[in-house]
Amino acid sequence: MGSTYGKIFKIATFGESHGAGIGVIIEGCPAGIAFDSDFIQSELTRRKPGQSRITTQRKEADEFEVLSGVFEGKTTGTPIALIIRNEDQRSKDYSHIAAQYRPSHADYTYQVKYGVRDYRGGGRSSARETAARVAAGALAKLLLMEMGVSIQAYVSQVGRLKLAKTYAELDLTETENNAVRCPDPVMAEQMFEYIDSVRKQGDSVGGVVSCVIKGAPAGWGEPVFDKLHAELGKAMLSINAVKGFEYGSGFEGVSLLGSQHNDAFYIDDNQNIHTRTNHSGGIQGGISNGEDIYFNVAFKPVATIMQDQESIDQNGDIAVVQGKGRHDPCVVPRAVPIVEGMAALVLADFYLRNKSSRI
Amino acid sequence: MGSTYGKIFKIATFGESHGAGIGVIIEGCPAGIAFDSDFIQSELTRRKPGQSRITTQRKEADEFEVLSGVFEGKTTGTPIALIIRNEDQRSKDYSHIAAQYRPSHADYTYQVKYGVRDYRGGGRSSARETAARVAAGALAKLLLMEMGVSIQAYVSQVGRLKLAKTYAELDLTETENNAVRCPDPVMAEQMFEYIDSVRKQGDSVGGVVSCVIKGAPAGWGEPVFDKLHAELGKAMLSINAVKGFEYGSGFEGVSLLGSQHNDAFYIDDNQNIHTRTNHSGGIQGGISNGEDIYFNVAFKPVATIMQDQESIDQNGDIAVVQGKGRHDPCVVPRAVPIVEGMAALVLADFYLRNKSSRI
Amino acid sequence: MGSTYGKIFKIATFGESHGAGIGVIIEGCPAGIAFDSDFIQSELTRRKPGQSRITTQRKEADEFEVLSGVFEGKTTGTPIALIIRNEDQRSKDYSHIAAQYRPSHADYTYQVKYGVRDYRGGGRSSARETAARVAAGALAKLLLMEMGVSIQAYVSQVGRLKLAKTYAELDLTETENNAVRCPDPVMAEQMFEYIDSVRKQGDSVGGVVSCVIKGAPAGWGEPVFDKLHAELGKAMLSINAVKGFEYGSGFEGVSLLGSQHNDAFYIDDNQNIHTRTNHSGGIQGGISNGEDIYFNVAFKPVATIMQDQESIDQNGDIAVVQGKGRHDPCVVPRAVPIVEGMAALVLADFYLRNKSSRI
Amino acid sequence: MGSTYGKIFKIATFGESHGAGIGVIIEGCPAGIAFDSDFIQSELTRRKPGQSRITTQRKEADEFEVLSGVFEGKTTGTPIALIIRNEDQRSKDYSHIAAQYRPSHADYTYQVKYGVRDYRGGGRSSARETAARVAAGALAKLLLMEMGVSIQAYVSQVGRLKLAKTYAELDLTETENNAVRCPDPVMAEQMFEYIDSVRKQGDSVGGVVSCVIKGAPAGWGEPVFDKLHAELGKAMLSINAVKGFEYGSGFEGVSLLGSQHNDAFYIDDNQNIHTRTNHSGGIQGGISNGEDIYFNVAFKPVATIMQDQESIDQNGDIAVVQGKGRHDPCVVPRAVPIVEGMAALVLADFYLRNKSSRI
Repeated sequence: MGSTYGKIFKIATFGESHGAGIGVIIEGCPAGIAFDSDFIQSELTRRKPGQSRITTQRKEADEFEVLSGVFEGKTTGTPIALIIRNEDQRSKDYSHIAAQYRPSHADYTYQVKYGVRDYRGGGRSSARETAARVAAGALAKLLLMEMGVSIQAYVSQVGRLKLAKTYAELDLTETENNAVRCPDPVMAEQMFEYIDSVRKQGDSVGGVVSCVIKGAPAGWGEPVFDKLHAELGKAMLSINAVKGFEYGSGFEGVSLLGSQHNDAFYIDDNQNIHTRTNHSGGIQGGISNGEDIYFNVAFKPVATIMQDQESIDQNGDIAVVQGKGRHDPCVVPRAVPIVEGMAALVLADFYLRNKSSRI
Repeated sequence: MGSTYGKIFKIATFGESHGAGIGVIIEGCPAGIAFDSDFIQSELTRRKPGQSRITTQRKEADEFEVLSGVFEGKTTGTPIALIIRNEDQRSKDYSHIAAQYRPSHADYTYQVKYGVRDYRGGGRSSARETAARVAAGALAKLLLMEMGVSIQAYVSQVGRLKLAKTYAELDLTETENNAVRCPDPVMAEQMFEYIDSVRKQGDSVGGVVSCVIKGAPAGWGEPVFDKLHAELGKAMLSINAVKGFEYGSGFEGVSLLGSQHNDAFYIDDNQNIHTRTNHSGGIQGGISNGEDIYFNVAFKPVATIMQDQESIDQNGDIAVVQGKGRHDPCVVPRAVPIVEGMAALVLADFYLRNKSSRI
Repeated sequence: MGSTYGKIFKIATFGESHGAGIGVIIEGCPAGIAFDSDFIQSELTRRKPGQSRITTQRKEADEFEVLSGVFEGKTTGTPIALIIRNEDQRSKDYSHIAAQYRPSHADYTYQVKYGVRDYRGGGRSSARETAARVAAGALAKLLLMEMGVSIQAYVSQVGRLKLAKTYAELDLTETENNAVRCPDPVMAEQMFEYIDSVRKQGDSVGGVVSCVIKGAPAGWGEPVFDKLHAELGKAMLSINAVKGFEYGSGFEGVSLLGSQHNDAFYIDDNQNIHTRTNHSGGIQGGISNGEDIYFNVAFKPVATIMQDQESIDQNGDIAVVQGKGRHDPCVVPRAVPIVEGMAALVLADFYLRNKSSRI
Repeated sequence: MGSTYGKIFKIATFGESHGAGIGVIIEGCPAGIAFDSDFIQSELTRRKPGQSRITTQRKEADEFEVLSGVFEGKTTGTPIALIIRNEDQRSKDYSHIAAQYRPSHADYTYQVKYGVRDYRGGGRSSARETAARVAAGALAKLLLMEMGVSIQAYVSQVGRLKLAKTYAELDLTETENNAVRCPDPVMAEQMFEYIDSVRKQGDSVGGVVSCVIKGAPAGWGEPVFDKLHAELGKAMLSINAVKGFEYGSGFEGVSLLGSQHNDAFYIDDNQNIHTRTNHSGGIQGGISNGEDIYFNVAFKPVATIMQDQESIDQNGDIAVVQGKGRHDPCVVPRAVPIVEGMAALVLADFYLRNKSSRI
C-alpha cells in the first residue's frame, strides 16, 4: 500500500533501483490529450543521472516505452502504462551492504516492516522511483498546459547559500541555464562550487526547491482534508529526502499580525478579482483563488556519502558502512523536475475533481 | 470530496459553523476498544472556545453524543457516529457579511467553487469542524494507548517569541498548566501577555505547535507516496490556518552536511536498535524507526480581526469588512489538541495498514 | 471497513437496529441541487415498517433530520448528514437471543469476526440500515431527475408467483397502488394473499424485485472493473437478503445464440442511435448505451420466522431459537424503494465520474 | 477510472488487445510469499487462446515478465509489475471495422464516452485484458494456498445443456481433463459437440461457470456494502460477457420458505461449528461462515460471430459488419481460470482487510 497517488488522475508506480525496470500506470487521464512523447522524454532527461559532475555518475538513458492507453497520438481515456528499463545496474556494487543498515537510509525500516528487502541500491526506497513520477507528471503538465497552467521550480537554497529574492524578483527563464537550476546566475555559480567542494570531501549537503504555479483558476482544491496545499504538501513530502514544506508566507508568516498578513481583495481594470498581497500563496480555505501558488520544499543532505560510517548489520553486529558507489552530493538540481511533476499531478487531479463541484 | 481521511481507520466529518451541528463517522476502528467517553470529552474540552480571555468567547459546551458503533462500553467494529450540536450560533452576527469576501478567508473561493455558500461564520470552512477531528482523534489515541504510543503537542512559538529548547529539554507535563499550552512557564507568561496585547489591538498573530510521538514501533508508514511524514504533513496542513510543516531536522537541516546529519545505528544494552542522533525525526524512508517522531506546524495569524478592512462583495463592489464577532487572537493554544488528534489519526491508520505488510 | 459506497457521490452509513439512531453522510453531492425534503421523506415512508399487515409491525416514523450541507434550500457541495432516530426499540425483545446464533442470520459471523456484537435486532446487520440508503438514494434521485433519468422498481415474483410480462408490457404506474408493489393488480392480489398465508404460518418467503432505468444517456460506467452493471450488481447484492442479480438477458440469455442475442444498431427518424432489441440491458462493455437499463434482484426468504428452530449458542451448547419479535414475512414490497435508491446512488456516481472522461 | 480492483490486495490492469502489451500492477501483496512463476504461467496457459478447436485460433504464448516486487524468489511487499507482450496482433484484420459499431460490442459506447477509441480488436474492451487478471489472481491463489483456501471453477452449462448435479456430487478433479472444463465427462462431450456445431455455423452460444471455494475461515467480508458476496458479484460481473451472478440458493431460493431455507447450526465431533444445510452459500450477513462458498456466473453468447450483421458506422450510415477474424464460439471454457482468478483476488483482499477487525 502507498504506491498510488491521486483520486481521479491517479498514478501507480512500481520498480526498484536495480530490478528489471521501473514504471507507472496513469489512470483517469482524460481522452483526447495529444501525447507529446518528446516533451515527456525531455522531462525525464532533466531528471536523469549524469548531467554534470555534481550529479551521480550512474548512466541511465531513462528512455520510456508506452505500453497502452495511447492510440494515433492521443490518450484514449484508458490506463497509460509507461516503463523505463534499468540499464546501469551494477548490482555487485551493493553486495557489500547486503546485510548492513546504512545510516539514515531505509534499510533498517524496510527490513523491520517486510522481513525481506531488495538491498541493491536501496531497492524500492531509491530515488530512482521518481523517474516514474516525472514521466507521469509530464503528462499531467500536458493536460494543464491546455488549461493555461504553468509550473516552474528552481533551486533557492544550497546549504546556507540562500536566494534573497522572491520568485517574482527572479528571471525564472534562467533556471535551466546552469547545472544547479538556480535562476540567479551568480548564486548558481557559488552553489555549484560549493556542491563540488562538498563532493570532493565525499560528503553531501541539503537544499531548498521553490516552486511557483501560474494560471491556475480559482476553485481547485477540496475542503476539508484534501486542501490544495495539504495535497501539495503530501506530494512534496513523499519525495525522497524531503524534510519540510511551506506555502505562501510559510514559517515566516507566523510572526506577522493578521492586519499585516491578510490579503485585501480588489477588482482590476478587467473586472477580475485579485488580492493586493499574496501571503495566502494563492490558496484560501484550501482552494485556489486565482493568484500565483508558491511554496518551498526542504531537502536534507542525502544519506549516501563517500566516507566510512559506523553502523550495525542485520545480525546486530557492529559494521563499517564503506563509502562506495555513486551518489548525488546534493539532490536539489535533479529534484527540480520532480517537484514540478508532483505539483502537476496534484493540480491535474484537482482540476478533474472540481468538475463535480456543481451540477 | 475531501471530507474523509484515512485508509483503514477512516473518518468522515460533516457540519458547518452555524448549522444544526457537526460530527464525524469513524469507520474501521477495530472492535474491542474500551470506549472512554470521559477521555474523549476531556479532549474536546481542551479544544473548546472560551477557555481563557485569549481565546474566542463563543460559548459551546461541545458535548458529544454517540449514535452508533459502541455497545456495552466497547467498540463493535462498526461505524461510530459522534455528533456535537451547535449551541451559540448567533447567526445574525453574520448577516452583515453575507455578500462580502472577508480578506484571507474562504468566502471568495467557496463562492467561486460552489456558486453557493453558507456564509454564517465561514460555514464549512470554519475551524469549528476541527472539533469533530478532536473527537475522532481521541478515539485513535485510545487505540494507540493500548499500543504504548503517546502523543504530546505544545506551543513552541507565538509571533517572534520562540522556545530555544528542544522537546527533549522541556518538561512537557507543564504544557497543560497554562492557557497558552507552552511547557516553559516563563515563556508561557510572555506569550500570554503578547497575545493579550494583540487581542486588545483587535489584531491576531501566528505561532508554531510542536509535537512529539513516543513509543511508536518501527515499521509504520507506507512507501512511496504514503510515507509516514507525508501523511503527517497532509494531516497537519489540512488544519485551518496552517502554512508549513517540517519534521526531524526540517528546514534547518538543509544547511547540514550528510556526515553531520546521518543518524548512526547502534545496539543498546537491551539489544534494541537505536540511532545516536535523531535528525531523521524517527522516520527513515517514510517508515518509523522506533525513535521519537517529532515535527513542527506553522499557523498563520487568523484572518478574523477586529479592524475594518477594505474588500469587495459578490457584486464586485468595494466593501468595508467590519471587525465584529468573536475570534481567537492566536489559534495555537487551542490547536494543540487538534495537532495531537490528527497525529493520532495518522498513526492509528498506519498501525492498521501495517498489519498487511507480511503474510 | 465496508460502510461506504461510491467514488465521487459517496455515502457512509452508520447505525444499528436498536442503537440511538441511524444515518448517512453524503459526500460529493454537487452544489446547487434543490433539497426537496418532502420527496426524501416520501421515499423513506415507502420503505418504513408497518405499511400493511404483510410487513413488520415495528413502529417507526422514520423521520429524518438534516445536520449539514444544505443552506437556504440548496445543497452547498459540503457533506450532507442525515440522521433518523430509532424509536420503537424494544430491546428487551432480544435479551433471549443475546447468546444465541439465529439460523441464517449474521449473529455467528459477526461474533467470529469482531469478538463482540450488538445482538439487539441484529445490530448493524439489520435491514434497518437500509433506511439510510433510501434517504441518500432519494437525494441521488433528485440529482438524476435534473438529468432526465427515472428509476422504477417493482415486485415481479413472490415465491413461485412470477410475472410473465416484461417491464415494457406492464403499466408501472400501478406499482404503488397495492401493498405488494406489483404493477399487475391481479398478480398483486395473489401475491398478497400468499404472503399473508405464509405470515399466518409464522414463515417467510422470497421474491424478486425488477428495476428499469429510463433516460440515462450513453457513456455512464467505467471500464474495466467498475462496469455499470458490475456496480449495480454490487449495490444490489449489498442489500440484505439478496442472493442474485442479472441484467438484460441475464441467466436466460446463456441459452441463446449470438445471432439471436446481438442487438443491431439503427438510426431513428431523429437521427438518434438505438438498438432494435435490448438483450444488452442498456449496457455494452460496461457503459450505458442510451437504451433502457433493466435488471432483476433475487431476495431469499428472510431468516426470522415465528417458529422454533434448533441452533447453538456462544458456548457451543444446543439452543432453541424461539419465534418471537416482529418481522416481514416477505421483504420484497419494502425492498422496492431500496433497490431504486441503490440504483440511483450507482448512477449519480457514474454521472459524476463521467465528467472526467474527456478533456 | 475503473481499472483498479481491491482495497488492500489491489490490482491495476492496463493494455489493449492490439497494443504493445497488457499487464498488471499488484499492490499490497504481503512480503514473504514464495513467487511461483511456473504456477502463474500455468494459470495463464489455462486461459490462453488456441487450446482446442472450440477456442479462438489467435496465437499468443502469454508469457509474462516480472518487472518489480520480487527478490530472491519472494515477494518484497512492494508493487509487483507483470507484463505480457502482445504477439499475434494482426491489426490489419480490424481496419474494415475501424468506423463500424459492431452489434453488442463496446465500439459505440467507448466512442460516445471518450470521443476516441482503439478499434483494433475491441482495444481496452477486449477480453484479452483478463490475462492480466489471471496472472494477478494466480498470485492471490498462492497467498490463499498458504491459508488453506482452494478455489475450483467449472463449466456447468452451455446453451441449454445444464449439469443437474451440484458441485458436491461432481468429481471436480475431472474438470481439466476435457476442453470444455466440465467435470462430468459425458456432459463435457455433449457440450463440446454442441459448441463445435455452433462454431461451424459461424455463431456463438452462452454458458454458466460455477465455482466453489473451500477452506475459507469464518470472518471474511465487510458489512455493509462490501459484503463478501457483493464483491464476488462485482468481480464476476466485471468479466467480459457476464450477465448474472447468484450465490448459495440464488434465484431458485426465492421460491423456498424461510423454514426450508434457513441453515441450522450444529457442533461437530471436533467442536467445530457448522450448518446442516448451506443455502447461505457459506456467507451470512456478508461474512464467510466457514462453509463452502459457491456461486454461478452467467455468460452471454459472445458478440463476435462469423455472420454478416446490419449496423451503422460512426457517420450514422448503415453498414454491414462482416463476420471476419478469430473468436471463441463459447467463452466459458476459457472463463474458468478467470472466474477463479477474480475469486482469488476478492478473497485475498478480504483476508487482509479482516486483519483490522479486532485490536
